[in-house]
Amino acid sequence: MRWVLPDHIQDALPSEAHQLETLRRRLLDAFHVRGYQLVMPPLLEYLDSLTTGAGQDLKLRTFQLVDQLSGRTMGVRADMTPQVTRIDAHLLNRRGVSRLCYCGSALHALPSTLTATREPLQLGAELYGHAGIEADVEILRLLAEVLRLAEVPASRIDISHVGLFHALAARAGLVPGREEELFDLLQAKDVPALQAVLANVAEPVRSALLALPGLYGGAEVIERAAACLPQDAEIDELLGELRQLSDALADLPISFDLSDLRGYHYHSGIVFAAYGAESPAALALGGRYDRVGEAFGRARPATGFSLDLRELVWHLPEPMAKAGAVLAPWSDDAGLAAEVAALRARGDIVVIALPGHDGTWNEAGCDRQLVRRDGRWAIEPLQGE
Amino acid sequence: MRWVLPDHIQDALPSEAHQLETLRRRLLDAFHVRGYQLVMPPLLEYLDSLTTGAGQDLKLRTFQLVDQLSGRTMGVRADMTPQVTRIDAHLLNRRGVSRLCYCGSALHALPSTLTATREPLQLGAELYGHAGIEADVEILRLLAEVLRLAEVPASRIDISHVGLFHALAARAGLVPGREEELFDLLQAKDVPALQAVLANVAEPVRSALLALPGLYGGAEVIERAAACLPQDAEIDELLGELRQLSDALADLPISFDLSDLRGYHYHSGIVFAAYGAESPAALALGGRYDRVGEAFGRARPATGFSLDLRELVWHLPEPMAKAGAVLAPWSDDAGLAAEVAALRARGDIVVIALPGHDGTWNEAGCDRQLVRRDGRWAIEPLQGE
Repeated sequence: MRWVLPDHIQDALPSEAHQLETLRRRLLDAFHVRGYQLVMPPLLEYLDSLTTGAGQDLKLRTFQLVDQLSGRTMGVRADMTPQVTRIDAHLLNRRGVSRLCYCGSALHALPSTLTATREPLQLGAELYGHAGIEADVEILRLLAEVLRLAEVPASRIDISHVGLFHALAARAGLVPGREEELFDLLQAKDVPALQAVLANVAEPVRSALLALPGLYGGAEVIERAAACLPQDAEIDELLGELRQLSDALADLPISFDLSDLRGYHYHSGIVFAAYGAESPAALALGGRYDRVGEAFGRARPATGFSLDLRELVWHLPEPMAKAGAVLAPWSDDAGLAAEVAALRARGDIVVIALPGHDGTWNEAGCDRQLVRRDGRWAIEPLQGE
Repeated sequence: MRWVLPDHIQDALPSEAHQLETLRRRLLDAFHVRGYQLVMPPLLEYLDSLTTGAGQDLKLRTFQLVDQLSGRTMGVRADMTPQVTRIDAHLLNRRGVSRLCYCGSALHALPSTLTATREPLQLGAELYGHAGIEADVEILRLLAEVLRLAEVPASRIDISHVGLFHALAARAGLVPGREEELFDLLQAKDVPALQAVLANVAEPVRSALLALPGLYGGAEVIERAAACLPQDAEIDELLGELRQLSDALADLPISFDLSDLRGYHYHSGIVFAAYGAESPAALALGGRYDRVGEAFGRARPATGFSLDLRELVWHLPEPMAKAGAVLAPWSDDAGLAAEVAALRARGDIVVIALPGHDGTWNEAGCDRQLVRRDGRWAIEPLQGE
């Protein structure tokens, strides 16, 4: 049948669309009162602008199109973060801190997992201009608050630090292609393959890289890392950042996993992934990406997170209660019109019964009806039709 | 510079994005309380599904992509109406009336005018399942209400009837390609070219088609049309529909223009275009398209309208007032946290001052600040920094 949708592409029918819209507003409101200003970058940009600073993996995910006006290659965004970074760097051009947020569809040429949608409804918040750990603390607290508001509270937020990987990889003296392979193997925690790739790397860097997949757990992981990674000022500082986060966020369910460097390859510092109680897959990803702004001509510290609102709705513990509608007869009675307007003004749904459709109004969501009784309009139950 | 956007593609920066979001919510709420249920069809579908029943013009506007999963051609939607029709026909499958609404981005491969965006934010409402004029009346009233709520009230709503054109074209006995040409010439009101195309058409159909471009104005147009179009039951009935609309909507600024058949070629009956006081271009288009559902395997009467929310925001008489933000110091004082939470709970924007950015908070929108005075937190103006 020709109206079958492509794989990993979905409609949101009324019940799901209502949940998406409700959560969208609730979360954008939470951003708004915290000073995160909404921006709406376009669905479509020139490909090199869309993937600036973001690496090959994002490019492979991006649908490409030829612009009939310019002949140049465009892409449909697969991720809004680089777009928001472009807006901060190039259009707002502020000296101080920018807090920005967004919510919009992105498209993935290929799904990221067997069950993932190719059209995530990406919602996120980004904080630009502040290099200190206070920004990471704010973003991690905001993420926890957003998941709480969505009624899918984080059961675990895993934190890692891409800086540690880069510091060790630089010392390992790998050729650039190898570094990417190493990154992927660490994420897969594929220790035998890691041992093969690192066979010719000198100690203590070799052991340090091999230790990363085992460095996961509570705050004690930071001290275990301090004991088994090379001890020098750079690594001490990076571990110090993790220690500061651990102290500042002691009331959140945070844990550490030093080989979990997920997300697109643009991240450069603290990175994190939040999980719900029921989900093996992360509900939200984020972290620091100080080098993306540089690619847009202006180096700016940057940290933030994003999530797929569709995924969040699929994880809601129970569907939201659905408001029933009141059926009003088709009539030009002025008293009825006033009653209908008053009901709608207080947020009630009033459906006008178009003539000739008796017996079908339950399927349109009506559970009550306006009926004329003793010269007045009254609301009565709408019997099962 | 690589971050220049493609022509006819725009970012919405904070001020515009705030306006778009405000209008989006206000208009979706107006749909909601009238029983129009929100649906969110995907950005991407197989091309033949996206353009079903909608004709060649929509296909030419649609960006095409190859699906790496299936090898089939997909399109990014250029118009959401056929998608919503697919949902009504195939997924909801209701016996009675469906009222549906939507708001989402569409993409046009080519801009429709010299100034048009290629990424309209399409918002609309559709009413399925009722063939009577009551549905057209409801949709036209809803359109007028939506423009009033957006503070761009309609100064004129031009109504026409594609049925009249089809009735006359059928009598003219044109080959199919010619009928499309005739349709375009009528919209352009190109009378010399019309005369050439109609040279061999017999009277009285020839004169009737040539009269259409002159049939515009107030309700009297309907009687002028009755006088100069062939008099038979079909045409009488179509003119009767226009007369019913004219009577039912006497309080709205409606007028008639019988050669203005704009919109995609899927329309089949009453069509209309709404104009604001300042805009030469239509702000909203709509009408009846009873034959699109049939293409999806289920003939259902259908009428509705849509508009581009971006265009509406560009026509706002004045920018919306912008709420200023309160700056709060970076501190772990519990009293401050309570004050900040209380302000945010009532909808005020409170921005936390990350350390080291003194003198930059005005650009982030702050016009007041929380200051500790006599052991309490007070709000004071934030002096120009």
